[in-house]
Amino acid sequence: MRAEIISVGTELLLGMIVDTNAVYLAQQLARLGIDLYYISAIGDNLERLSEGAARAFARSDLTIFTGGLGPTEDDLTRDAIARALGEELALDPELEAAQRAFWQRRNLPMPARNLVQAQLIPSARPLPNPLGTAPGWWVELPSGGIAVALPGVPHEMERMWEQEVVPRLRERGATGVLLTRTLKILGKGESAVEEAVRPWLKSTNPTIATYAKADGIHLRLSAKAASQEEAAALLAAFERQVRPAVEADVYGVDDETIGAVIARFLGARRFALADALTAGGLSATLVQTPTLAARFAGGLVAAGPTVAWAQAAGPPGAAETAVVLAERARQQFQAEVGIGISGVAGPEPVAAVAPGTIALALVDDGSFSQTLTRSSTPADVRRWAGYAALNLIWRALSGRPLS
Amino acid sequence: MRAEIISVGTELLLGMIVDTNAVYLAQQLARLGIDLYYISAIGDNLERLSEGAARAFARSDLTIFTGGLGPTEDDLTRDAIARALGEELALDPELEAAQRAFWQRRNLPMPARNLVQAQLIPSARPLPNPLGTAPGWWVELPSGGIAVALPGVPHEMERMWEQEVVPRLRERGATGVLLTRTLKILGKGESAVEEAVRPWLKSTNPTIATYAKADGIHLRLSAKAASQEEAAALLAAFERQVRPAVEADVYGVDDETIGAVIARFLGARRFALADALTAGGLSATLVQTPTLAARFAGGLVAAGPTVAWAQAAGPPGAAETAVVLAERARQQFQAEVGIGISGVAGPEPVAAVAPGTIALALVDDGSFSQTLTRSSTPADVRRWAGYAALNLIWRALSGRPLS
Repeated sequence: MRAEIISVGTELLLGMIVDTNAVYLAQQLARLGIDLYYISAIGDNLERLSEGAARAFARSDLTIFTGGLGPTEDDLTRDAIARALGEELALDPELEAAQRAFWQRRNLPMPARNLVQAQLIPSARPLPNPLGTAPGWWVELPSGGIAVALPGVPHEMERMWEQEVVPRLRERGATGVLLTRTLKILGKGESAVEEAVRPWLKSTNPTIATYAKADGIHLRLSAKAASQEEAAALLAAFERQVRPAVEADVYGVDDETIGAVIARFLGARRFALADALTAGGLSATLVQTPTLAARFAGGLVAAGPTVAWAQAAGPPGAAETAVVLAERARQQFQAEVGIGISGVAGPEPVAAVAPGTIALALVDDGSFSQTLTRSSTPADVRRWAGYAALNLIWRALSGRPLS
Repeated sequence: MRAEIISVGTELLLGMIVDTNAVYLAQQLARLGIDLYYISAIGDNLERLSEGAARAFARSDLTIFTGGLGPTEDDLTRDAIARALGEELALDPELEAAQRAFWQRRNLPMPARNLVQAQLIPSARPLPNPLGTAPGWWVELPSGGIAVALPGVPHEMERMWEQEVVPRLRERGATGVLLTRTLKILGKGESAVEEAVRPWLKSTNPTIATYAKADGIHLRLSAKAASQEEAAALLAAFERQVRPAVEADVYGVDDETIGAVIARFLGARRFALADALTAGGLSATLVQTPTLAARFAGGLVAAGPTVAWAQAAGPPGAAETAVVLAERARQQFQAEVGIGISGVAGPEPVAAVAPGTIALALVDDGSFSQTLTRSSTPADVRRWAGYAALNLIWRALSGRPLS
């Protein structure tokens, strides 16, 4: 199967955005064993888009469009595919009802233009998009090939690709089987993780790769085979070899989030925080997990140590200060678990304490604390403190040694 | 002048690298006022590359290749251009001498394959590359168009573009000037903004376009002309026409951030918050602006209205409740400006108040409040509340009517 990608949008041709969608899809296709022959970026111009579509339909078995599915006059992917195939766009009653329902749920009038998103051509079936208003298209071409139109918004596009497109490609037998397992790691940097798994880095099937993400380092193991069973056996054997090398720092696998893991160890207890550094960045991250939102008893937040309640806790960035803050939060908000964060984001020192000094603490039946330094911009010091706090909370609650 | 970019390399099609060269060149072309119509990535395959080259030469005035100029058998850009033009490659004595000199200076034997980098076709002149071994090509096409082949290594490519290609394009009078101005909007959605500027949507120079971003809707005006002065005059006249249609919702232009604008209106005052909905998401966003980090007197945060201090303020999601919270924050943290957020993120109602109900308030010498609803996931309700709060804060502090 020969595939090609057409990325739609004048902003790509102006260099205003990087085409990360094409990179994602290229990686996905490689994993599925589908050969990608061309990536093109074309602007919001009906003539050039429909020419590009017609060329792709003639030379490729699978054409993937991203972008140009929105409601504005610049969104021309539907029109371009229709023109390339010589088909007429028509309003689909079910899609129209879904559009109207979307706006009704928000108590907003539906902009008339939005109805263009309810259009189809005879060869196209809609692909649901629960994350946005623009459905995708699955098009069976007269040639026997396939065209797929996906939204340009990355998280909408990725969900639609994984949930809607890949299963349909599999049904057609267009893909091999690639299974992956992601070990999620906190408390070690990417190079340290890579060093730990060095013996397996050159393996070509299964493969191993590291990715630095907002919730830690992801170590992805992937195995390819002709059948599900074969791929699963290959992957399981590989994981048994690799896992001991990183086990001490693995907080979860695959879709487990750090929030869900923390919630599991927290159990029925409630937590509170006194955060004189990230100004609420940590709590905002934690409450993205519904259970943690329900268990959050409240917090005191500030951007630095100069506010009165933070000053009263002790010198900024000292472990004892973070413990005092954690204890205070626990008492003030009547929670079983208290979290304290103290430090200096910069750019200037405070009370002779250098920018980048961070102290973290968790107090429950025991007391856990840690100090760190991070020489960087104030925004990065805050981000890093929140990240390190997730690691401390996980280790303290689960009884792992701090690191 | 119509331009297109062909990025050469199979690694692009495997998603192993991001095509930053194309982004760089797209931005450069936009600034020079050269219209870019296509970006394509093609693998290291002579057939597909020469087809792509022939198509580009037929439809574009300027074709820019990046990559594929190295010494290996996979480096096929020279061969593809030669084949597309029906010309023969031949060793150029000067380039050959330069290749040999390069290796001699390093006291290394020259790999025989490296001589391919000394090849030219009759239509091509070499472009010097002091940073690497592969010279570029400047090709005068029989059609009158131009093709340029640049190395794939970014710093070699950028130097060659700036020092060798741009001056030659200027000599030909091929470049103009493109100026842009971005109006940043809060309090209106993308379709409403588009509706407001509908009369100018079809204008081709200057142009207008909308983009939905995390800090509001960006409305970009762009004007092209032969000179800086002409482009500036065109853009200014266009802005005078368009701006009244959106003026009520414009908080800043170009690089002005919402944080910087809020900081300007806040002046020397300090602000505090009582946020029983975003759990600190709003304050974490605000303190990304250094001045606001310095002016943040502290906050009380929670994920919902069931914590004691939020309950004491009144029914969740009511405007009066948000005002009570704002007033409380102002007093507790001794700030001149208080911000209150109350609401129900969901998924369940609280005290018979529906998920998605949001109330926002700002109290300084006056008192400003607003209620909103957003039917969505809890995470999106919180995100949206933070976004709407930026709008309220900006409007309240700047004396604009709320919207």
